[in-house]
Amino acid sequence: MTIPKAAQAFPRTEYLRRLSTVKAEMEGRDVGVLLVLDASNITYLSGYTTPSGYVPQALVVNAEAEEPTFILRRCDAPAAMHECFMEQGKIIGYPESLIGNPDKDGYDAVINFLNEAGLAKRSLGIEVSSLPAATLEKFKSRLPEARVVDCTKLVTWLRLVKSELEIEVMREAAAISDAAMKRASEVIRPGVTEADAAAEIAAALIRGANGKPGTALKSFYLCASPRIGTCHIPWTGDVFRDGSQINVELGGTRHGYSAGLMRTFSIGAPSERLRRIHEAQVEGLEAALAAVRPGSTCSEVANAFYTTLRKHGFDKETRCGYAHGIGWLEPTASLKDGDTTELKPNMTFHLMLGNWIEDDFGYVISETFRVSGTGAEVLTKTPRKVFEI
Amino acid sequence: MTIPKAAQAFPRTEYLRRLSTVKAEMEGRDVGVLLVLDASNITYLSGYTTPSGYVPQALVVNAEAEEPTFILRRCDAPAAMHECFMEQGKIIGYPESLIGNPDKDGYDAVINFLNEAGLAKRSLGIEVSSLPAATLEKFKSRLPEARVVDCTKLVTWLRLVKSELEIEVMREAAAISDAAMKRASEVIRPGVTEADAAAEIAAALIRGANGKPGTALKSFYLCASPRIGTCHIPWTGDVFRDGSQINVELGGTRHGYSAGLMRTFSIGAPSERLRRIHEAQVEGLEAALAAVRPGSTCSEVANAFYTTLRKHGFDKETRCGYAHGIGWLEPTASLKDGDTTELKPNMTFHLMLGNWIEDDFGYVISETFRVSGTGAEVLTKTPRKVFEI
Repeated sequence: MTIPKAAQAFPRTEYLRRLSTVKAEMEGRDVGVLLVLDASNITYLSGYTTPSGYVPQALVVNAEAEEPTFILRRCDAPAAMHECFMEQGKIIGYPESLIGNPDKDGYDAVINFLNEAGLAKRSLGIEVSSLPAATLEKFKSRLPEARVVDCTKLVTWLRLVKSELEIEVMREAAAISDAAMKRASEVIRPGVTEADAAAEIAAALIRGANGKPGTALKSFYLCASPRIGTCHIPWTGDVFRDGSQINVELGGTRHGYSAGLMRTFSIGAPSERLRRIHEAQVEGLEAALAAVRPGSTCSEVANAFYTTLRKHGFDKETRCGYAHGIGWLEPTASLKDGDTTELKPNMTFHLMLGNWIEDDFGYVISETFRVSGTGAEVLTKTPRKVFEI
Repeated sequence: MTIPKAAQAFPRTEYLRRLSTVKAEMEGRDVGVLLVLDASNITYLSGYTTPSGYVPQALVVNAEAEEPTFILRRCDAPAAMHECFMEQGKIIGYPESLIGNPDKDGYDAVINFLNEAGLAKRSLGIEVSSLPAATLEKFKSRLPEARVVDCTKLVTWLRLVKSELEIEVMREAAAISDAAMKRASEVIRPGVTEADAAAEIAAALIRGANGKPGTALKSFYLCASPRIGTCHIPWTGDVFRDGSQINVELGGTRHGYSAGLMRTFSIGAPSERLRRIHEAQVEGLEAALAAVRPGSTCSEVANAFYTTLRKHGFDKETRCGYAHGIGWLEPTASLKDGDTTELKPNMTFHLMLGNWIEDDFGYVISETFRVSGTGAEVLTKTPRKVFEI
């Protein structure tokens, strides 16, 4: 039967463009077939955003085929038919007997496909770092004629520069981030529990903005006094009180792409300590953004921030940002001292200035920006203030 | 400085009891030190529920020490101080220089700890299946005097039988599941978008029930016509219409423990196809629950379901349930043909009867139950009906 496609995030031409850059890179490494295992890379090359990577799955990119083939658990295959740009025949569901089976798993179905399609005699690129040792061994022993080439992050690096279409989706995500932070400023009140505020903010992230819903809930954290030295602890049933500080990290998500945004809230006037770190961090944030231009490096942007912060007598241990897009953090370029990645137009970053200074004190602010032709364009639009409730 | 503990899910004695069963199992395998890497196993043995496993971390259980030592990223260490039952000195944060570093990572900090504490000369249990090949190699080469023993699922199997205290937390989670499904029945209406309904249901899962909030949002899916052949596809901006079917999977979560619940909704009278599968599945569900008793096997329970379903002319490819608790699915016992795990009191399962029959049609119903002294006690209390809107 023919399964109707869900609303597609991108036209077919966009996926073929992405695949052509992957295939060019494969050719340079003498790789004929590439197994894409990372969930974000699969999203990038197919449109699939369903969270089914809890069991083995692989997108097989054959340099000689226009469309990739996606092999995944049978019960998740219909979701791929709805979401992926490929024709339905390129979706292969493997049987349930490979789930919870101590002897075989979904990777055996991937190996069977390669053998049956005659693709096992060539050099075979695999994102090796995604695989447990025993699985890699299985690939080698069951595909003895294939030469395995580690292609970890091959696709990931290609995701760094976005297309105009991707930037448009990230703008939609950023609008959701702004709407959710506005909602936070409406619901964080003395006497309200952390969980009740979190419920409203999560709902805003899903409802979305401008008629475009959030399609997943990613990386949403609400850390309140006395737990403001933490970055990822779950919300609790505790009640906000006069003098409470609340650090919020959130990001709207559209079709896999997120746009991170962090702000700090204070019930009552901010303490002197909070006021001082806020001023230093905002000045550092602006210095970092001013250092963004095509041709400058990640390290230069980071050091513009760190230098400014140190002038105010503060420091920050964690990096001050990372490449940002599908799956939140792209594990490639970091805004940190020594990262010599050169900025290019339409790279996107989460300038992540969360600063957990002491075990019992932290402060957060961040923006999502793209590198424009001349500088930085900030996609998130929320005021750069401590929200005083 | 001393960090105040957050509200603890369990008393210290409960964690020491769990650790004593782990240590007995370690002794049986001649393992002196166990590295626990799986996030759910870390929760079980320490109380830590913060989602920081995106970078390396390890709970080190030394057979000769009362409390384990937890080694994790420095910026997440304060969350461990708030959440874990151990004294603060047992929390070790590793420096930021190990993040995004191509040459070293957090596992090097774990190895350093073992070397410095003199724990590297003994047999060393590791949950090997959680590790990439290169990392396992690093453990072996940097700890040449240790004999590595694969202890994958050692702790996981011990989690299968719950204590009364754990059952109480799962009851709280189940009450949240019921409240959220009730909310679904209030907000699923013709003309409402999938995302707006999802927002309300997610908020209900976080707000919780009986004054006890949900502490995380886990495994929440809403799949509506024409995508009811899928199990995990994200909600969209589409509008529910007369004749739409909506399959909802959700679960309240408390302190890491979830209680799954699935129900099917129909806008307007259910189709003949939906009515028939519902009747068959409910009869199968009741047959499965009737087969639960201490001493019977997972396979017997599953076959009570499958036999009943087949009498009605249906089949179900996926297993009909799994051990359930921290981290949703416990990867140990499955309710499927051939699983000879013997039921014992206070084992808990998600009797998961989602049945994706065709690429364009599926139906869901499920309950969370515990094995009681004589049969099954169902923790979720939602009516077993197709919710007709």
